[in-house]
Amino acid sequence: MPKINKYVDIDTVEREAKKDFIDRHSPFITVEGSAKKGKILSVIVKMGNEYTHPDDFDHYIESISLFNGETKLAGASFISGTLGNEKSNTQVTFNIRPMGKRLKLVAHAYCTKHGIWESTPLEIAVAQ
Amino acid sequence: MPKINKYVDIDTVEREAKKDFIDRHSPFITVEGSAKKGKILSVIVKMGNEYTHPDDFDHYIESISLFNGETKLAGASFISGTLGNEKSNTQVTFNIRPMGKRLKLVAHAYCTKHGIWESTPLEIAVAQ
Amino acid sequence: MPKINKYVDIDTVEREAKKDFIDRHSPFITVEGSAKKGKILSVIVKMGNEYTHPDDFDHYIESISLFNGETKLAGASFISGTLGNEKSNTQVTFNIRPMGKRLKLVAHAYCTKHGIWESTPLEIAVAQ
Amino acid sequence: MPKINKYVDIDTVEREAKKDFIDRHSPFITVEGSAKKGKILSVIVKMGNEYTHPDDFDHYIESISLFNGETKLAGASFISGTLGNEKSNTQVTFNIRPMGKRLKLVAHAYCTKHGIWESTPLEIAVAQ
Repeated sequence: MPKINKYVDIDTVEREAKKDFIDRHSPFITVEGSAKKGKILSVIVKMGNEYTHPDDFDHYIESISLFNGETKLAGASFISGTLGNEKSNTQVTFNIRPMGKRLKLVAHAYCTKHGIWESTPLEIAVAQ
Repeated sequence: MPKINKYVDIDTVEREAKKDFIDRHSPFITVEGSAKKGKILSVIVKMGNEYTHPDDFDHYIESISLFNGETKLAGASFISGTLGNEKSNTQVTFNIRPMGKRLKLVAHAYCTKHGIWESTPLEIAVAQ
Repeated sequence: MPKINKYVDIDTVEREAKKDFIDRHSPFITVEGSAKKGKILSVIVKMGNEYTHPDDFDHYIESISLFNGETKLAGASFISGTLGNEKSNTQVTFNIRPMGKRLKLVAHAYCTKHGIWESTPLEIAVAQ
Repeated sequence: MPKINKYVDIDTVEREAKKDFIDRHSPFITVEGSAKKGKILSVIVKMGNEYTHPDDFDHYIESISLFNGETKLAGASFISGTLGNEKSNTQVTFNIRPMGKRLKLVAHAYCTKHGIWESTPLEIAVAQ
């Protein structure tokens, strides 16, 4: 409490409304190029892969935090209206500089109506 | 992942170092007076009850968030040095106005070395 | 740009609507007791002294930051609804530990409709 | 107070150390492609154009906020170490959806040693 909602592969979900609900609340992490030790890596966190989330005054994605394992790297906060009060995929790109051998990237996001959501972790080897 | 560390009653813990570790990382929630519907209620979140946490540049309490059930009410962020770089109990007081019948207050805190920590929930009846 | 709106003594303002507008958007800083070097000091930042601000979904106090001179000490962020969607004085209490000879406390607050507002600075001698 | 430091064209500055100081603390805003009403626009805020800023535990870029005129769109917060404790250009990309006729983008950034810095505004016509 509060519940940490976790992404579930929506191909395993039957009801369309539930697919939409899970997908639009889940952060998805991708990186640009490959991770090299000491080199800047762009990490994109995008809310929803196939579905979009409202940007209503009383229902919006308020924040996204990016972790490497247990360590918070950066966070973004949003105010409703940034996306024109239209449905969208809230997205933020952070730059990080990996120094170890592996990254275990995971994101948390907060929806003002549906709470905390955790991405599937993205584990990447860092070229030395 | 990241792990949500939860408070464990330190009377059940044997090792002194572990009691200290758990206590100083745990948010404790108290309220001033009693909760009445529509009336402002001061909610205090204090890190550590019996032990104090460092305020070092590379090891400090970076943030505290307060939830009512799944709903985030408010958050505070800190920068090391605010507490003079001395050990202390990071503390923040938020004012909220309860409108329902019960509050289920819970806090999350983030330590830059030891990750996310969750308080024991504080459940309170709201006088109508 | 963006404009940093500064508090103006509302006794010098004629129109009631303007008094209300200025007062409810201005952070006011007070401290509990007196400042002593190395001792914890509670600093209260309250929005509005004589008037209250809405807590509407599209119009609320989104954040308050506390500075000592040029140095940010701590920040708080809010989500509309915390105050029951009723008019109120958003308030937060931070604990700090002064180490120097003087504090020059100042707060910035952000209203989602009316931008950034700066408090009158509170200058305090720190007992050594 | 606190001072809002504003970018000054460093070609007009003589001393190399001062060019470096101003440049590395200034947010620079660019957009990807052109702004169209109702279409997502990626806005990049990068600290420093020709010089880099430390990512030391006691000296780092702690936050960046993006405004459209007086309206805050989004913010990012950072923790030292994200950039490997090496000098770098802290950068964040936000997505926004412009709905009006013009954008007046401006960014504020906060350095834990050198305070608040404001970008040169970027004014863009939004194709209707």
